[in-house]
Amino acid sequence: MLVEFTVVPLGLGDSLAEPVAEALKIVDDSGIQYQLTPAGTCLEGEWDEVMTVIRQCHTRLLGRSVHVITTIRIEDEIGARNKLRSNVSSVEKKLGRKMDT
Amino acid sequence: MLVEFTVVPLGLGDSLAEPVAEALKIVDDSGIQYQLTPAGTCLEGEWDEVMTVIRQCHTRLLGRSVHVITTIRIEDEIGARNKLRSNVSSVEKKLGRKMDT
Amino acid sequence: MLVEFTVVPLGLGDSLAEPVAEALKIVDDSGIQYQLTPAGTCLEGEWDEVMTVIRQCHTRLLGRSVHVITTIRIEDEIGARNKLRSNVSSVEKKLGRKMDT
Amino acid sequence: MLVEFTVVPLGLGDSLAEPVAEALKIVDDSGIQYQLTPAGTCLEGEWDEVMTVIRQCHTRLLGRSVHVITTIRIEDEIGARNKLRSNVSSVEKKLGRKMDT
Repeated sequence: MLVEFTVVPLGLGDSLAEPVAEALKIVDDSGIQYQLTPAGTCLEGEWDEVMTVIRQCHTRLLGRSVHVITTIRIEDEIGARNKLRSNVSSVEKKLGRKMDT
Repeated sequence: MLVEFTVVPLGLGDSLAEPVAEALKIVDDSGIQYQLTPAGTCLEGEWDEVMTVIRQCHTRLLGRSVHVITTIRIEDEIGARNKLRSNVSSVEKKLGRKMDT
Repeated sequence: MLVEFTVVPLGLGDSLAEPVAEALKIVDDSGIQYQLTPAGTCLEGEWDEVMTVIRQCHTRLLGRSVHVITTIRIEDEIGARNKLRSNVSSVEKKLGRKMDT
Repeated sequence: MLVEFTVVPLGLGDSLAEPVAEALKIVDDSGIQYQLTPAGTCLEGEWDEVMTVIRQCHTRLLGRSVHVITTIRIEDEIGARNKLRSNVSSVEKKLGRKMDT
């Protein structure tokens, strides 16, 4: 399944770059397939694998902030694979061209 | 922690009442503390307890639809209890009155 | 349409009660139909009416914090009315009983 | 501001590729800065510019489905520019390297 998540710790100032980097290091070390986007981090894997990584990120930031908001959006399509790539490419294909983003 | 979640199965028609009811039956049978809202279901409990219930709902609807989108918003505040009630009441208190909603 | 929104200002400490109360006062003064839930605020109205209120809340908190995260979830069902009540009651009806929440 | 949005029409079958492509065509034609991600579409611009595009996408899909769910996540940071690029690059910088995703 494809999962996008964000972790927002409160009370650590007004920049998210450092906490997000701390979470992303956990993601990167986990070996899970992922893609960092402007608005969050996308993971692809089975439920347990994905949720273990997200929980580690959430818990890590709870060690620095007493109030953490974590959002998770799961898109689960039976039989689909490599949605990190195919979600974008299938839309481009329907549009009949490659988006020049 | 307080968690709001929604489960949206695609390809089952344009009403969500039946799938949501099916998911809510799982929530209600689980014994977890919850509140149904106009936009989702709020749960309160520990990570494992909450995620087990959400996974059961997600899996149940994957048995009916091949494409399910589940969103989860975790608000975790160390030391906070009974956020199902206190999140609303603490805002009302700051406003200096009870909201007549 | 039914809309749930949250406004999270960063850098104002680790409690959200005060900023949420400030936003909710705007909602309450607007006259729009709404319901405060443990995880956000639900509004019901037309696009312009709803978005004007959300923008006012967002802008108000940008006056206090340089970094604000606002989430909006729109559920728009043609012909549906009073979703603030009917979304909950239609699920209860499908379940064949009133949920004792 | 940076905005990520998704538009999910119900009752149109279990694939989202075609409706997402239809929405993305509107985004692409608008001239707004954007990036398609595996989990949504990121836009960057002022409130009115961004919301006009999202409303057009939402309205277009309401012409095909009677029930549409649109989610919007706004991250607004005063003084920040080019968040479509800098949100990713600032995290990479904190990590001390370029993520090989």
